[in-house]
Amino acid sequence: LVVIRALEGRDVVRLKGGDPLVFGRGGEEAEELRAARIPFEIVPGISAALAAAAQSNIPLTHREAASSVTFATAHAADEGDVSSTLPLRGTLVLYMGLGRLASTLASLVASGRALDTPAAVVSRASLPDARVVTGTLATLAAKVASARLVAPAVIIVGEVVARAVASEPPLSLPRALLKHTYELGKA
Amino acid sequence: LVVIRALEGRDVVRLKGGDPLVFGRGGEEAEELRAARIPFEIVPGISAALAAAAQSNIPLTHREAASSVTFATAHAADEGDVSSTLPLRGTLVLYMGLGRLASTLASLVASGRALDTPAAVVSRASLPDARVVTGTLATLAAKVASARLVAPAVIIVGEVVARAVASEPPLSLPRALLKHTYELGKA
Repeated sequence: LVVIRALEGRDVVRLKGGDPLVFGRGGEEAEELRAARIPFEIVPGISAALAAAAQSNIPLTHREAASSVTFATAHAADEGDVSSTLPLRGTLVLYMGLGRLASTLASLVASGRALDTPAAVVSRASLPDARVVTGTLATLAAKVASARLVAPAVIIVGEVVARAVASEPPLSLPRALLKHTYELGKA
Repeated sequence: LVVIRALEGRDVVRLKGGDPLVFGRGGEEAEELRAARIPFEIVPGISAALAAAAQSNIPLTHREAASSVTFATAHAADEGDVSSTLPLRGTLVLYMGLGRLASTLASLVASGRALDTPAAVVSRASLPDARVVTGTLATLAAKVASARLVAPAVIIVGEVVARAVASEPPLSLPRALLKHTYELGKA
């Protein structure tokens, strides 16, 4: 559709949630535009991992807890050769994993991560109904099931999850918290 | 300083380049705010890896080329136990690596990546003087040295680098390319 409209002479803006080059198929769309000789420009966005981190105050890297962060799909974690795809140390953020959470967490344990590794699911990050459930590789699946989280969601795995710091509840509502005021107004 | 000003009763906005929770020490700052009982909110940003990808049209993931992407510091790649920190497959984006590029690329080869693995350095992504140099783990360091790239820069390693698609040069200048118009105006 982008190609068709552009060939009609229009300027086309393709809006995506997240970042187009991280599990967004932006590379494939660029290949098609190039094949059709249509000029384009790619604008970066807030990938779901970054939105989930800010939502949950989980630092994806931390000088004392994780020197790297890997973004993958939960499907990749369920594949046979996990150890060559996902590092054993460092933070993992798994996209699109809510539906197969129990098997994904079991795969990570089978590949060598400890059962008591902290882990979280962040559901609908950046949206007003965002929710965060934390646990460990052993406990998270049951906690998420009973909390009835909904997609889209990402799984964050690693010591950094235990480094999440809850904000002190504000006594007044400073301007920086206007978004929260909006939520309170709706409730 | 953030803590001092907030305790004076001010609303404080701490602006950072990139994303505060990806090599930004946002987690440590949150810990200090919590210790001082100061409410806060974290807003995500465009981490350098995403800016570099959009600048260079390199897809960080691609269904045919990479199912994961790992962000790490170049320092991590130079450490002894690379294989447990950085996966052998998938895309790597290494932050803050321009000064030690040759040794970083050599470490990746020593850890098992092929010499002909495509790799790129993206310098000053998102800025008007951004530049991209591509090569392989074998050739990139010499090419970057002769191109005299300057920091800040990130290194992107993996098959996705070969998937970068140059945009067709525009015959006219559509509105979506206003940024480029600005650059031409300056030149």
